[in-house]
Amino acid sequence: MSHITPAVIAVHAAVREQAPLVQCITNYVSMDLAANVLNAAGASPAMVHDPREAGEFAALAGAVVANIGTLSPRWVDGMLDSVEVARDANKPWVLDPVAVGATSYRRESVDRLLELDPTVIRGNASEVLTIATRTAGGKGVDSDASLDDVREHADALAKRTGSIVAVTGPEDYVTDGEREPIALRGGDPRMPLITALGCSLSALVGACVAAHDDAFEATTAALAMLSAAGEIAGASAEGPGSLRWRLLDELARLDAGGLAQHVGR
Amino acid sequence: MSHITPAVIAVHAAVREQAPLVQCITNYVSMDLAANVLNAAGASPAMVHDPREAGEFAALAGAVVANIGTLSPRWVDGMLDSVEVARDANKPWVLDPVAVGATSYRRESVDRLLELDPTVIRGNASEVLTIATRTAGGKGVDSDASLDDVREHADALAKRTGSIVAVTGPEDYVTDGEREPIALRGGDPRMPLITALGCSLSALVGACVAAHDDAFEATTAALAMLSAAGEIAGASAEGPGSLRWRLLDELARLDAGGLAQHVGR
Amino acid sequence: MSHITPAVIAVHAAVREQAPLVQCITNYVSMDLAANVLNAAGASPAMVHDPREAGEFAALAGAVVANIGTLSPRWVDGMLDSVEVARDANKPWVLDPVAVGATSYRRESVDRLLELDPTVIRGNASEVLTIATRTAGGKGVDSDASLDDVREHADALAKRTGSIVAVTGPEDYVTDGEREPIALRGGDPRMPLITALGCSLSALVGACVAAHDDAFEATTAALAMLSAAGEIAGASAEGPGSLRWRLLDELARLDAGGLAQHVGR
Repeated sequence: MSHITPAVIAVHAAVREQAPLVQCITNYVSMDLAANVLNAAGASPAMVHDPREAGEFAALAGAVVANIGTLSPRWVDGMLDSVEVARDANKPWVLDPVAVGATSYRRESVDRLLELDPTVIRGNASEVLTIATRTAGGKGVDSDASLDDVREHADALAKRTGSIVAVTGPEDYVTDGEREPIALRGGDPRMPLITALGCSLSALVGACVAAHDDAFEATTAALAMLSAAGEIAGASAEGPGSLRWRLLDELARLDAGGLAQHVGR
Repeated sequence: MSHITPAVIAVHAAVREQAPLVQCITNYVSMDLAANVLNAAGASPAMVHDPREAGEFAALAGAVVANIGTLSPRWVDGMLDSVEVARDANKPWVLDPVAVGATSYRRESVDRLLELDPTVIRGNASEVLTIATRTAGGKGVDSDASLDDVREHADALAKRTGSIVAVTGPEDYVTDGEREPIALRGGDPRMPLITALGCSLSALVGACVAAHDDAFEATTAALAMLSAAGEIAGASAEGPGSLRWRLLDELARLDAGGLAQHVGR
Repeated sequence: MSHITPAVIAVHAAVREQAPLVQCITNYVSMDLAANVLNAAGASPAMVHDPREAGEFAALAGAVVANIGTLSPRWVDGMLDSVEVARDANKPWVLDPVAVGATSYRRESVDRLLELDPTVIRGNASEVLTIATRTAGGKGVDSDASLDDVREHADALAKRTGSIVAVTGPEDYVTDGEREPIALRGGDPRMPLITALGCSLSALVGACVAAHDDAFEATTAALAMLSAAGEIAGASAEGPGSLRWRLLDELARLDAGGLAQHVGR
């Protein structure tokens, strides 16, 4: 994986330098951690969701992140408004289809969002499989599917939609359906116990695509950054509680050396 | 209290083995901590509240938790939908009547929820007293009443509703109005300074009743688990900030030995 | 700054003694931290926002805090209800105009709130400048303006509205347009990386104005308390993750000696 390191390092530096404003229309559970992850990485979070202002705000943002974790009609309207503004201004936006397989309302909402050409789709294996195959399934927010079940579907989804597709889990996978896909291992096995860390990763993808034009590289960099910070944090964490704050500490002081050491293997 | 230990240990193990999906329709303040507590205990949290999907989702869940901390009409509708689905499928559900005495809207909403036969009602002494006596009172989320004021009322409420009633505070009390009530001491005196820890306990009760058929034992186990984790965490915590993450660490690594030692006294 | 120490210490003690109930109608991102900050300081938080109960609840509260971070129409209605009840009962209320310059909806909402005579307006330099000059500007929640840009505007705003105006940032500034303004330095340079710490400070101002009649002194005390706790916490924090929980620990054990040492310089 050492071939991705220079791009990862460039994206990481670009986020710190540009401090992109990332508008997150995200679930209630993730608000706190996603904002703290963005801050730790050097970006500027903004949670602005209501149709009364979401679209207007998107004009100021460097990227929009739409996460369906705790969905309701006004929030979907706000997402659609913001995403449309972003798309029309050629700004990147990220779709996080949390538990899309769980209810028809989620599937319908994701269908509407997919029509607006997400720059990146980031989900776990079950979520990406649901979108790719349009079959229901998946118990809540946890993934029943494995990466082996989904690689080809992810490639096909990326090719069909023009989106970067990132499947995250014990092993991460990034594909645009054209280039050689990226596989990333690392992090800490207790990271799934930190609620909303996946949602926060989607927010971080938003920061990276805002700061770096190549969305494939930017997405890979976001995954690598969180993975490296989690791995360093994990070395001294005693459980999910300490892993969470240590991860923020490590993300805030992550530098090129740490990145190279932890994602360059 | 050593008589409760084997059941507590069995419930604790059942949650880890089954990883029950717990649908929480809970207040905004508690979202993060409740989900992290469920994850640390080995359960799977899902915050799904809107009437557009709440009932449909309840069909997938092992238990539903309805918490009125930050109430609004759509959320009440979502709670009623989910709870009705749970009840009709003979799935357990937990009512957390946060600050029920504070406003007429809370009292009315709790009245509607009580008609749907909660498996467990978990509150502080003031909240349980308000429900049991249907008289207003109680300043916000903190309890003015003491356990001595409420024991008999809790017993009567349990008998009348068929619910397990758990009154938590410096000393916890679990009653079904029939069996010998359980009294639990332990934890750490600074636990009330951790916002939404009571709400998170209700979520944990949801996980336990989902994984274990005897709701009286399951409720007791949830209280014992949080108490044991809090007590172990408290030994090295320097304040409410460190107590919070240490509690999550300890809950994640709690085993039968730790439980026996900290609730078996 | 030693001239402010006795008042700061008196306010700090009053909050601990009275444990005021603070109703926060605040943004989703800040719910958790604001409540924990209030708890750590010895106050009692209550997040109650919906028009169905917000005004009724305000009658029970010692102060109301209105924060526009994640605005929507029902929440604005709830704010107006609560604030009106507070004003009519001569109870203090605090306005936190998060990112007011970002959208017209924010500016309009703040205009409506300003008509209800906030006791205190707490914002960063950009936010206070926007209100004072009614010109749009400011990128999201972070401040583009500096304190030097805003001092005179803050004085004029305070004089015009009768509110205490607190501008917070690397250096804090408190003015009522009449008395000698207070300038406060301290804290830790990484505090801005903790999401919603400014919002939590507004909540803490609410606790202090509820417990102490002189709102100028109460506001100054809130800023000094957070600054002192942040500075002590910062000495052992390794990043924004550890700074957050350490700050809560230090706030919970802050005493007159710690306050005097860290704000009396």
